[in-house]
Amino acid sequence: MAATYLIGLDFGTESARGVLVDSASGEVMESAVHPYRHGVMTRQLEDGTPLAFGWALQDAADYVEAGAEILGALGRGRVVASIGLDFTASSPLPVGGDGRPLSEALPGEPHAYVKLWKHRAAQPHAEAISARGGEFLRNFGGRVSGEWLLAKAAQLAEEAPTVWAATARFIEAGDWLVWQLTGQETRSLGLAAYKAQYTPEAGYPRDVVPGLEGRLAPPRPVGSPAGSLSGAWRKRTGIEGPAAVTVAVIDSHALLPAIGAVKTGCLVGALGTSAVYLVLAEAYRPLPAGIEGVARDGSIPGLWCYEAGQASFGDLLAWFARAFPTSPDPAECFGQYNEAAAAIAPGSSRLLVLDWWNGNRVPHADSALSGLILGLTMDTTAPQIYRALMESVCYGARSIVDRFVSGGFPIGRVLLASGLALSNPVLDQMMADVLGRTVEVPELGQATAIGAAIHGAVAAGVVSSYAEGAARYGARRIRTFSARPEHASAYESLYGEYAALVDSAEVRRAMHRLNRLASGGAPGSRPGRS
Amino acid sequence: MAATYLIGLDFGTESARGVLVDSASGEVMESAVHPYRHGVMTRQLEDGTPLAFGWALQDAADYVEAGAEILGALGRGRVVASIGLDFTASSPLPVGGDGRPLSEALPGEPHAYVKLWKHRAAQPHAEAISARGGEFLRNFGGRVSGEWLLAKAAQLAEEAPTVWAATARFIEAGDWLVWQLTGQETRSLGLAAYKAQYTPEAGYPRDVVPGLEGRLAPPRPVGSPAGSLSGAWRKRTGIEGPAAVTVAVIDSHALLPAIGAVKTGCLVGALGTSAVYLVLAEAYRPLPAGIEGVARDGSIPGLWCYEAGQASFGDLLAWFARAFPTSPDPAECFGQYNEAAAAIAPGSSRLLVLDWWNGNRVPHADSALSGLILGLTMDTTAPQIYRALMESVCYGARSIVDRFVSGGFPIGRVLLASGLALSNPVLDQMMADVLGRTVEVPELGQATAIGAAIHGAVAAGVVSSYAEGAARYGARRIRTFSARPEHASAYESLYGEYAALVDSAEVRRAMHRLNRLASGGAPGSRPGRS
Repeated sequence: MAATYLIGLDFGTESARGVLVDSASGEVMESAVHPYRHGVMTRQLEDGTPLAFGWALQDAADYVEAGAEILGALGRGRVVASIGLDFTASSPLPVGGDGRPLSEALPGEPHAYVKLWKHRAAQPHAEAISARGGEFLRNFGGRVSGEWLLAKAAQLAEEAPTVWAATARFIEAGDWLVWQLTGQETRSLGLAAYKAQYTPEAGYPRDVVPGLEGRLAPPRPVGSPAGSLSGAWRKRTGIEGPAAVTVAVIDSHALLPAIGAVKTGCLVGALGTSAVYLVLAEAYRPLPAGIEGVARDGSIPGLWCYEAGQASFGDLLAWFARAFPTSPDPAECFGQYNEAAAAIAPGSSRLLVLDWWNGNRVPHADSALSGLILGLTMDTTAPQIYRALMESVCYGARSIVDRFVSGGFPIGRVLLASGLALSNPVLDQMMADVLGRTVEVPELGQATAIGAAIHGAVAAGVVSSYAEGAARYGARRIRTFSARPEHASAYESLYGEYAALVDSAEVRRAMHRLNRLASGGAPGSRPGRS
Repeated sequence: MAATYLIGLDFGTESARGVLVDSASGEVMESAVHPYRHGVMTRQLEDGTPLAFGWALQDAADYVEAGAEILGALGRGRVVASIGLDFTASSPLPVGGDGRPLSEALPGEPHAYVKLWKHRAAQPHAEAISARGGEFLRNFGGRVSGEWLLAKAAQLAEEAPTVWAATARFIEAGDWLVWQLTGQETRSLGLAAYKAQYTPEAGYPRDVVPGLEGRLAPPRPVGSPAGSLSGAWRKRTGIEGPAAVTVAVIDSHALLPAIGAVKTGCLVGALGTSAVYLVLAEAYRPLPAGIEGVARDGSIPGLWCYEAGQASFGDLLAWFARAFPTSPDPAECFGQYNEAAAAIAPGSSRLLVLDWWNGNRVPHADSALSGLILGLTMDTTAPQIYRALMESVCYGARSIVDRFVSGGFPIGRVLLASGLALSNPVLDQMMADVLGRTVEVPELGQATAIGAAIHGAVAAGVVSSYAEGAARYGARRIRTFSARPEHASAYESLYGEYAALVDSAEVRRAMHRLNRLASGGAPGSRPGRS
């Protein structure tokens, strides 16, 4: 019998990645990456139409191109049992009744494009929705983030009513890509629950955005089949076999089965551009204060999965290396900063950073907040600042872990996943020191894409359970970092200072007022539509 | 008759500079610069003895070396009518009864060296003195700065009693150098009044630092003769003629006659590493809140001179170029940042900076405060931060100007002096826009040294008044920058945000607590004695 394969597709912020896995041995045979042709559009559209501050758009055609290239590269002439895919979220787009993105017909209209997860310009709409409130926010701490679908739908409906009128479906890009691959619309409970506050009991929230409910569709739990790869796609990619496509999974959640986190008691940190922290629980517990949301069947079927996040994580370090390069080669630049930062002792540079470059999720859920560096002196060096940025993202992580612990969740293990965790032991050790507990880093490259493949394997019946999928396809080795008592003790105090600054209303007011001044037409504020 | 000359000596933070001026024509014939051999010692002494955080020392022998080199280079074989000199302040040192610095005998003892103006480690002693209070603080807003002589004397007396016991004289480096040049101790009223709270009526403050009064000496007004250049120095430098040496002047104050600010109604900004703002008045008015001090006869004889300062100014920009170089050539690096920053519109980058890298003088008089950058996002660029730093020092200037205006001082003109003002029109224009008023930049290089020379000319009777000295030796052309209404309006709002953040107690508390954590022995805090 010829070998059969699984394909896992991971659609990230800048590019898509795919892995081809031998369904019997679990071995990763090949992988492929394809960057999005238009990347993230933050300043202008391709035709030069300017974008206002805080916008972040993508072109849905880029997903199709990347998906086709990767599926072709991995699957041509092969028997593929299943295709699982994960996607950034919430990254919704308006499409016509035929599923075509409105951006095809309206290439100069910003509102016709995918509003990427880190699009921040919908924040005022989120605040308005939160202010009105409703039972649908019970599992989300009583408020909607500006990054979620409801806020982005509200922004579209209010700011571009003619585009909204032309919108037959408002759909997460992950669900939209499943639709493209199979020829039928099948939405994901993971995307719907965490990003549009859907519950099986109450459905989507009613009357939040006029006309929105008619533009959505009921979702199915993750791990459900969504259909087979369509004829057109088979022709385009040369894939053979059943090629069962699964409903989409939120990218960070796709990690869980790949690193063996398929049961209660684990806290998983998915450290990427931003970071997401997930806690699985068999029984429902009330949402700890500041934690973003919880849903069942949206991450691992049958389990509740609590989610909290940091709006910037790895991209904070990338920002620094980009703004202050020490070398034209980014990797060399990171290496130099990392090495210099590792030699600096906790607290010695007196710096404190609020890691809010992309806004803050926990505890303020406010994407209009911004970053802060405090404690600068004439002796401050670039590596000290780099280290302080790294410390700040660890403090942000700790504030989330602490909330789960004080909310009564049994956190037996802390697992850190992603390429960043694998490649940066300085960061992993700092996490252990700041958290004051052992952290584990599963040694598995491309874990997100492999997780997506496991979802596909479950949906297609290649394995009988997530536990079996995790055992066959997931991480086999784990690196462990223990907290060093002296550092942990120093960070205990420093974290207290971070927490005090996080709570400072004076600091947050200043950030908000600066935004208002910039939007209020100070000379030279960036032109735009919002 | 052979030409006769004036020499002006300007002892700055990193180097000394001298000018040779034709006493009849007023022309600058030659100039010379000599860096201090040991520069500013902030981390260790020459023998490797470590210094604690906030320390900044100099070696008095470096002043003698620089003074001799410059006097020799400019004066050898020439008839010199007078030598005037200015000095950083407060930069005191302990000396023996013979005037020899204690550092000669105790080279491994940090307390035996000159505590440079920007030495910050005496701040707790300043706070203790301020807390006890006293009538001597009436003209200094009720408090002593950690940069002033009283605080530095207290630190020495309390932390190193054996060094204090060996101290016959505790003396400003400027007064000490006059002593070296003439062979007799003659102190300056300018140094004594502003840095040791001396008044002709009450003398030095009593019982502030045990034993201090006996280690000081009564001062003479600026523009007074201190004696002639000694035989040893004549031999060493080859100078001929009367070579009358004047009492020392505070470096920033020396500017005044060189740019024609010798009467009431001018506000002069001396923009250097740090910045000092001076306002001359014929009649005494109460010190406006937040302004540092006032004295009579300490700057221009017969006038009251109000002083306020910013602890960092040009060195904030220098710090940035040093921490984040774009080129190995500092001048090229500044040029690149300046050009890029000039193209950015006020408020567009949403950044707000507190310019406290060296602590804050107005309004908090707290050298333990530190710098802050707020409003960072993933779009923030290095030139935006550079511009925000530049804006922050202008905001700091405005807070001082506003205090004079609301204190009822008639500020008819704002004059900005120094090499920085002459070389950086982007900064000058920003000053006009932030202040919302016209600023004037006298076109005179080496103005401080020329001002020192004018003091010498007055003391030696070469001219009959400061007005005559200013007319003959001072600036002849002035460049004018007018506020641009659109920018001024934007900065009006942004300055309001700066002022609100300056007032934030939460921010200042965080800075203080970080200092305490670093001093409190977090692992790896810099070893030291304080």
